[in-house]
Amino acid sequence: MEPVINDEFYMSLALDMAQRAQGQTGINPVVGCVLVKDGAVVGLGTHLQRGSGHAEVHAVRMAGDHAEGSTAYVTLEPCSHYGKTPPCCDLLIESKVKRVVVACEDPNPLVAGTGIGKLRQKGIEVKVGVLRDRAVRQNEKFAKFITTGMPFVTIKTASTLDGKIATDSGDSKWISNEEARLQVHSLRHRHQAIMVGVGTILTDDPSLTTRHDGVDGQQPVRVIVDSRLRTSPEAKVFKDGTSPVIILTTKQVDPVKAKLLSEAGANLVSCGSGTQVDLKSALQQLGTMDIGSILVEGGGALNGSLLKERLVDRIIMYLAPKIVGGNAAPASFSFEGIHRMGDAVRLDPLEVEQVGDNVLISGIPNWPE
Amino acid sequence: MEPVINDEFYMSLALDMAQRAQGQTGINPVVGCVLVKDGAVVGLGTHLQRGSGHAEVHAVRMAGDHAEGSTAYVTLEPCSHYGKTPPCCDLLIESKVKRVVVACEDPNPLVAGTGIGKLRQKGIEVKVGVLRDRAVRQNEKFAKFITTGMPFVTIKTASTLDGKIATDSGDSKWISNEEARLQVHSLRHRHQAIMVGVGTILTDDPSLTTRHDGVDGQQPVRVIVDSRLRTSPEAKVFKDGTSPVIILTTKQVDPVKAKLLSEAGANLVSCGSGTQVDLKSALQQLGTMDIGSILVEGGGALNGSLLKERLVDRIIMYLAPKIVGGNAAPASFSFEGIHRMGDAVRLDPLEVEQVGDNVLISGIPNWPE
Repeated sequence: MEPVINDEFYMSLALDMAQRAQGQTGINPVVGCVLVKDGAVVGLGTHLQRGSGHAEVHAVRMAGDHAEGSTAYVTLEPCSHYGKTPPCCDLLIESKVKRVVVACEDPNPLVAGTGIGKLRQKGIEVKVGVLRDRAVRQNEKFAKFITTGMPFVTIKTASTLDGKIATDSGDSKWISNEEARLQVHSLRHRHQAIMVGVGTILTDDPSLTTRHDGVDGQQPVRVIVDSRLRTSPEAKVFKDGTSPVIILTTKQVDPVKAKLLSEAGANLVSCGSGTQVDLKSALQQLGTMDIGSILVEGGGALNGSLLKERLVDRIIMYLAPKIVGGNAAPASFSFEGIHRMGDAVRLDPLEVEQVGDNVLISGIPNWPE
Repeated sequence: MEPVINDEFYMSLALDMAQRAQGQTGINPVVGCVLVKDGAVVGLGTHLQRGSGHAEVHAVRMAGDHAEGSTAYVTLEPCSHYGKTPPCCDLLIESKVKRVVVACEDPNPLVAGTGIGKLRQKGIEVKVGVLRDRAVRQNEKFAKFITTGMPFVTIKTASTLDGKIATDSGDSKWISNEEARLQVHSLRHRHQAIMVGVGTILTDDPSLTTRHDGVDGQQPVRVIVDSRLRTSPEAKVFKDGTSPVIILTTKQVDPVKAKLLSEAGANLVSCGSGTQVDLKSALQQLGTMDIGSILVEGGGALNGSLLKERLVDRIIMYLAPKIVGGNAAPASFSFEGIHRMGDAVRLDPLEVEQVGDNVLISGIPNWPE
């Protein structure tokens, strides 16, 4: 294929560059920037880490004198405020960039159009919306966190075609195929935390680390929802020291158990005064700890509770081409249930993809009014 | 697109012609035939109805003198035996066809290669296997019936992403989208019978007819699995007279109920001497009635029983992008359940397709050894 040279051509590179940094910018967005002058790429930049240079800074530095008169392709509206670094708008203006192409506005209420306005005020031509959908999708986690202070919650399930995450005897190894399981490790890499219910710890004793094929991955914080502190201080998550372990529990905690788990390395967080973890309070507290995204890896009860409380931002389901039946076999979403079909939670927009013989369905949950 | 002229080019037309006749040939296969001579199509034929001319007969008749020296593209191996019509092999030989291209062998044990052998014996060049997969898939129902005497059983379900065919209050209207529901009417058209459990009759009182947009459809025989004769003689299926109604029941039948249902127009078939319909016996008896294909439209209990007894040849699932939860909400396959994930029923080969915001998954069930 011979790609056509146009705004989309350069913007798609900027998006690709940003995409490779997903998972390493913490609560910050991923941003890519490409500078083009006289038909040639003169600068490339990506925001790599929270607190370090923004994409525009790297690109302008690389371009040197060529920045003057160039077109800047930026995946996210350049910032107009002093954060951990000076505003990128000012940098583009000072560098005498002639034209700025922006994929999408910054959802940050401190920016939200003021960056674009400032550039235009200075006589710079600004085009907004090139590959917007891709750019918005790319920073959906950032958008949730910056506007609400709550982490973006992705639920990932692996189920049979009849909606079971295990057989009625509890056997779940393996539902999804190898390729799907590798993709899940990449999903972990792209979230700041992994969350499981204590049931998963008791049944599988997983390490909850990211493992890739030949390359390193980001190791998200491990979060266990454990109202009664049933997690053992001997659990695998405490052994490898790759990332912190947070246990979400309640104020009615047994102090002896709490002490043992703290000594094992757990950070205990009290969520509400009931007998069960208050999930909304839990997410709010994780937000204050600068955890901006969470991958929930089941089981069905935790999935069901989060869904019922409308705390879910994306659902990613791997469907294996299997049927196991069994009315007692655990379902991917176990909760009281919705009574009218018209009130069902709907995934929209929806992405569907074949992953070998598995089917990947990803979508944003919409609750009825 | 400019299609390349080759054997596949003409065979795909023959397959398309046969495909349009699916549903109207009863237990017979669908067959298409294209005759090509000196770079021009000279004859077209399709088998239209059981007992009427075969595809080759129509094509040769259309070609007239041009049949001599032509190449015949036939989707199914030409028959070599006297059935309701004389063997097509003899016709092709007599017509002095020069070359025969066959998509797939006839699964009929009375043919199974002998047609091809006979043609070769007479010095005709025969090429076998052009677009074979499509041809085999096209006549999978015929293949099952002709080799076993049992109808090909397709289970169709419409479920949420968490495997529910209704909410816990029984609400199922509507799970799938309009386009999927139209496709189901086309599926009915392509099967000789529709089968439901009595529960569906009691709950929905459906007419079980085929309704298309602007064109007529084949009206399959309606089959109700009803061990205790709970179907009402007032049910809708008895009202329209579009196609026969068969009620599968047991020998322990209440003669009064049986008489009332017979008077309403039902054909009662006793399947086994137990309290429940013996499904294998039922299918065997339907086979003897020249019903070669059945579309099962639920509910979950009937689906589960057929799956458990390994009586299913294809599963077609429409998945709506919805989640309803509810442990009591009915599942698409309700049966005792498989205990080891490794023993799950697997769909393979698998076809996946987006139907608007629904996902269509179709596959052949494979049971573990």
